[in-house]
Amino acid sequence: MSDYDVASHTKVRRIPERGHYDEETVHSIIDSSLICHVGFIEQERPFVIPCIHGRDGRTLYLHGAKASRLMAESGSGKPICITFTHVDAIVLARSLFHSSMNYRSVVAFGKGRILDGEEKMHALEVVSESLCKGRWDKARQPTEKELRATSVVAVDIDHASAKIRAHEAVDDQDDLAGPWWAGLLSVERRITEAIPNPDLSEGIETPDHIQARVGETL
Amino acid sequence: MSDYDVASHTKVRRIPERGHYDEETVHSIIDSSLICHVGFIEQERPFVIPCIHGRDGRTLYLHGAKASRLMAESGSGKPICITFTHVDAIVLARSLFHSSMNYRSVVAFGKGRILDGEEKMHALEVVSESLCKGRWDKARQPTEKELRATSVVAVDIDHASAKIRAHEAVDDQDDLAGPWWAGLLSVERRITEAIPNPDLSEGIETPDHIQARVGETL
Repeated sequence: MSDYDVASHTKVRRIPERGHYDEETVHSIIDSSLICHVGFIEQERPFVIPCIHGRDGRTLYLHGAKASRLMAESGSGKPICITFTHVDAIVLARSLFHSSMNYRSVVAFGKGRILDGEEKMHALEVVSESLCKGRWDKARQPTEKELRATSVVAVDIDHASAKIRAHEAVDDQDDLAGPWWAGLLSVERRITEAIPNPDLSEGIETPDHIQARVGETL
Repeated sequence: MSDYDVASHTKVRRIPERGHYDEETVHSIIDSSLICHVGFIEQERPFVIPCIHGRDGRTLYLHGAKASRLMAESGSGKPICITFTHVDAIVLARSLFHSSMNYRSVVAFGKGRILDGEEKMHALEVVSESLCKGRWDKARQPTEKELRATSVVAVDIDHASAKIRAHEAVDDQDDLAGPWWAGLLSVERRITEAIPNPDLSEGIETPDHIQARVGETL
């Protein structure tokens, strides 16, 4: 595992000890994120659009309808920014000033390119498996027509940084003996239930690779 | 309650029936979001940064360290985009092509301005109460020095749209009798625990307005 090169636009300037540039940290935050937020510029205006993703090495894959703004813009080769955020706790300090959040986030930069052929199929499998492991082989495969209606964008990450806060509230020394409470409200995202479709044919049970995910934190 | 004007950059083009422009829908998604993702342009590069927020009418408030890139750029009067996303389920259709997510998202556009004086204090209270209702009066108030180190940005929303998917998997007619499972994996974000700080003075109990939030979905 190596580090991402630090660039002026990815260097964590505010509270630099929260910054991380190693692949292990950056990729684990990306891989455990259910969605990402993709930023691009269209007509001098910034757009931020939520999207699902997959990752292979230092390459991120996004997919969407060929007709969508997100695919057209993110695949155009212009610089884009992709951000991944987990919220782990609301941090309530004695002072409002030191109140904060515990979080793990990654901000990644790169340029997107539209995929075709084998690399497109590989990327679709990566995105699908990232969302639901084991599903690629068990669902109905894409047809030629569906593939034509779908765009897949690869973004080779050129720079990325992670920022993590993962500790209790930290107050000024003078406030410690004060009358105020301090602590965390822990936040968790999890899969709560597998709900079979109402139109499911009789006798089709919820597969193990789906049922087993109930209770999983995301 | 009225509607946001529809603009070319906020019109939901892909699957237009998922688009909503009424204040009630847009604001309820904003208000129930724990964080937002702010998009801005710096040196022709898009940035997407996670941030906490508050809302008063059609105005969004963001805050952060005065020295941060986010505050400098979002308060500069250039166009910014603020996106709010809830994930409600992973939608697993029989076909990979129709697999999707259930979500509620808002994409809002406006220009930011740095606040001062009374409006700044009001905005800080709105952000604080949005994150933890009842806390503003019960925590240690900001000092003059802390206020000087904090920037607060107001963004008057000029255009916004919501996009919602909230239903079961929808497959092609030809696939309904096939051997594949279809359904939802429901996803929920919730507060799981209130954890008092290790350095809390003896005798300070977790306040009701904090303890009562354990179990709340976000």
